Amino acid sequence: MSAQPIVLSEISSFHIGGGIRRLEGQLKREVKVSTNGEARMVDLNGGYHVGQLYAQHFRQAAPKYKLPVLFWHGGAMSGVTWETTPDGRPGWQSFFLRQGYDVVVSDAVERGRASWAPFPEIYETSPLFRTQEDAWTLFRMGLMEGYHEDPAQRHGYEGQRFPLEAFDKLSAQFVARWTTNNERTLAAYEKLLDRVGPAIIIAHSQGGWFAQQIAAQKPEHVAAIVAIEPAGAPTLNGVEFEKASRVPHLYVWGDYCDDHAAWKGYKAKVLQHCELMRDRGGRIFQLDLPKEGIRGNSHMPMMDDNSDHVATLVADWLLKEAKLISE
Amino acid sequence: MSAQPIVLSEISSFHIGGGIRRLEGQLKREVKVSTNGEARMVDLNGGYHVGQLYAQHFRQAAPKYKLPVLFWHGGAMSGVTWETTPDGRPGWQSFFLRQGYDVVVSDAVERGRASWAPFPEIYETSPLFRTQEDAWTLFRMGLMEGYHEDPAQRHGYEGQRFPLEAFDKLSAQFVARWTTNNERTLAAYEKLLDRVGPAIIIAHSQGGWFAQQIAAQKPEHVAAIVAIEPAGAPTLNGVEFEKASRVPHLYVWGDYCDDHAAWKGYKAKVLQHCELMRDRGGRIFQLDLPKEGIRGNSHMPMMDDNSDHVATLVADWLLKEAKLISE
Repeated sequence: MSAQPIVLSEISSFHIGGGIRRLEGQLKREVKVSTNGEARMVDLNGGYHVGQLYAQHFRQAAPKYKLPVLFWHGGAMSGVTWETTPDGRPGWQSFFLRQGYDVVVSDAVERGRASWAPFPEIYETSPLFRTQEDAWTLFRMGLMEGYHEDPAQRHGYEGQRFPLEAFDKLSAQFVARWTTNNERTLAAYEKLLDRVGPAIIIAHSQGGWFAQQIAAQKPEHVAAIVAIEPAGAPTLNGVEFEKASRVPHLYVWGDYCDDHAAWKGYKAKVLQHCELMRDRGGRIFQLDLPKEGIRGNSHMPMMDDNSDHVATLVADWLLKEAKLISE
Repeated sequence: MSAQPIVLSEISSFHIGGGIRRLEGQLKREVKVSTNGEARMVDLNGGYHVGQLYAQHFRQAAPKYKLPVLFWHGGAMSGVTWETTPDGRPGWQSFFLRQGYDVVVSDAVERGRASWAPFPEIYETSPLFRTQEDAWTLFRMGLMEGYHEDPAQRHGYEGQRFPLEAFDKLSAQFVARWTTNNERTLAAYEKLLDRVGPAIIIAHSQGGWFAQQIAAQKPEHVAAIVAIEPAGAPTLNGVEFEKASRVPHLYVWGDYCDDHAAWKGYKAKVLQHCELMRDRGGRIFQLDLPKEGIRGNSHMPMMDDNSDHVATLVADWLLKEAKLISE
């Protein structure tokens, strides 16, 4: 590949948010922990770091923009969403690095390298797992009838841009999720913004919900939000709506939303939310790809075959709208 | 920082190994999945990608060496081990990137971004979690009596080089582990070597056990192994010993091993293993830091205050011994 090199001054990572929780009164049990080692007593009583998120920070040697781009993933996913596409093309992380932005890719609380805590001892509930079948319809690859155990026999929506031959690879990215960690997650994202903000947040699906909420809490830390198909909108009071309206928002929507009841519902709620921000003077934009004549995008435009094109549209909007980001 | 920039042609990631497993006959349950969303039926029946590992690949624009360095973490840890130290200094990932190596940092099966599968439905057993107390002694920070809930009141071994003020940060890196995934993990590491090898493997603790086993399975894919305090040695037959002996091994040991029964035991077993490789002509080296006059290293030399010094000793050995790596 003849692309320009990515020239970085530093690649670093950190955990942020949460704190130490202690477990007491748990029974010990005997476990053979290491191969060829002796069984030893395992004692779950003690201190655990709980509620942190993980972030990997790429700093340009010569950043073109003063604010970093933060990538927030969706439900049952991790920061891997933004790296290489499942069929092996460079993802949005690389795209925005090559644009000259500093980039922070995070794994939210409980996901990926953020790690998760014992349940039900610390986390209140059991995790959920995403099946291929669940993702096939929820990510709008196609109708349920089009899914098949045999990859060769799968049929997506007509014109589908997701690289369906890599759908199994996509499912290798799925991680367990809990439904009871929203407060922990928001608290950790706030800490992240305290550390690396003000910033541009590019957020996907569930991450878009968190981003919209954060905009209403700390608008001074958020230069712009790009919400890629957010899974609904937060319930805000008047003061929060006023705060959220200070942050430019771009919403990106793929194709086939009308074919899926949940997405039809999420989108309707989000558009309502947008109206209320616009009423307060908010600069709120919709990039509804099919309306722009760009058909065939799934719930994962950062992985679809036109991922660079959609990234370009997002990057152009940032330059036009998010004035704070220019040097 | 005035360090030279890291100039990369590509930052990519991928999952490798494992495959699709199907769950059937599970009861559905109703769960409110998204905030503000409606409850919906969650159906765990379906396909899951199981047994993959996650790897992040950093390619130099102008690599100085033809073989990449693979970093394999230890038990209840992830690839984060090799990134920034818990007190915020550049870790070995950066060190070896700045030396000019391509670098591959992975999360083994079940850890971090590799993700894990439902148990007991797919994984056979429940996970284990590492407490602070467990890590305090196992990682040889100090005696159990020196641990305290209050960080200010903790007392490590005299001369301890681990940045104890960042011990809570270290515990934010811990992830759940299973004791029944060794075969899955080895299989995935083999696939990783098929893809990016031949390579130098720098492996820590449990990862060192896997690395030693892999050397005995695919010596032609392994240019050298640096085992940082491996948690024991694999049980090999004669043919495997002969194969393992073709791979140069460097073993790195920190301080205080004699103060911890488990480490005394692991080390004795490993030294025995080394003798058997030497008997077969293996080029097997010990970097026993205290014997070299370098006192105070914990189980985590890649995080200790002399982490760059230890990295330099490792890098020097690679240049001298692992002839395959020079261009």
